[in-house]
Amino acid sequence: MKQDDLKYCTKCGHLLKSLIIQGKKRIYCHNCDTIYYDNPIPSVAVVTCNEKGQLLLVKRKEEPGKGFWSLPGGFMDDGESAIQAALRELQEETGLQGIVKRFIKIFNQNSDTYGHVIIITYEVGIIGGQLKAGDDAENACFFDIEDLPLLAFSFQKQAIEQVIGCSLPEAGTV
Amino acid sequence: MKQDDLKYCTKCGHLLKSLIIQGKKRIYCHNCDTIYYDNPIPSVAVVTCNEKGQLLLVKRKEEPGKGFWSLPGGFMDDGESAIQAALRELQEETGLQGIVKRFIKIFNQNSDTYGHVIIITYEVGIIGGQLKAGDDAENACFFDIEDLPLLAFSFQKQAIEQVIGCSLPEAGTV
Repeated sequence: MKQDDLKYCTKCGHLLKSLIIQGKKRIYCHNCDTIYYDNPIPSVAVVTCNEKGQLLLVKRKEEPGKGFWSLPGGFMDDGESAIQAALRELQEETGLQGIVKRFIKIFNQNSDTYGHVIIITYEVGIIGGQLKAGDDAENACFFDIEDLPLLAFSFQKQAIEQVIGCSLPEAGTV
Repeated sequence: MKQDDLKYCTKCGHLLKSLIIQGKKRIYCHNCDTIYYDNPIPSVAVVTCNEKGQLLLVKRKEEPGKGFWSLPGGFMDDGESAIQAALRELQEETGLQGIVKRFIKIFNQNSDTYGHVIIITYEVGIIGGQLKAGDDAENACFFDIEDLPLLAFSFQKQAIEQVIGCSLPEAGTV
């Protein structure tokens, strides 16, 4: 939940206020003494190529980036590891089963909808399944690296470049 | 905020209920149509050794693990990267300035206070500062690897072992 959306205490229902706590401005409930820390939300994304070296992308059904192509991924759920989340999102959005080859990097993004999101990114190999778009994806395709569509998020260009080992054209993101 | 603590909608103040959304039970506000996703909270920890190969630990001032020794670390703040959070926590808790040498692993922990927490762990070298406990730490010391105190969290044993390249004794955590 973005800090701007915090109006009532979710524990006791009282109106929330701002207070300087440990040198930082925090949203605080004076009634039940609850501090609302402003933590980023963890998500995952996967860079997956097939045996021809083509990159797997999904067309996003929802904002942010609705209608644009993106690496498969999404928010981590309670109780699952980042790797489990990455493989679950791959399966839900593309029908493919994967195995993590390596950790790439943690990227940061500021979203109008969700605030600060961190994106834990893995290189993933395919070990089974059949390509079929699902969940938040309206389409799922492998693309030649020289012929990628516009990407919804700029950090994804960096993640792809780290896997393919060369630069993508500047016009690679929205 | 743990799901059990979500009673009132923080946007509109109405009582929250559970609803099955996209196949998962979510906390939901029927008044303003807000879904409360149950995302883990991202935190960081650092494995730091001095030139003698001794490990830097802090004695925790707060629960969980109050009074026990731990790797320096804490929650990511809004707007900072995991690496920035790691170096900030190191400085706040130990007075030392560091530089990230490498990413180690993302660990998972279930806390009574915070629910599911992910801990992004880095190996960090020291580049300046003077050892002095601060913030959430009541003490900060370098320990010989053969003579580590009980650790507050079991995942930290694994993180240390990955850096020192050998196993610690089984009795290394609380």
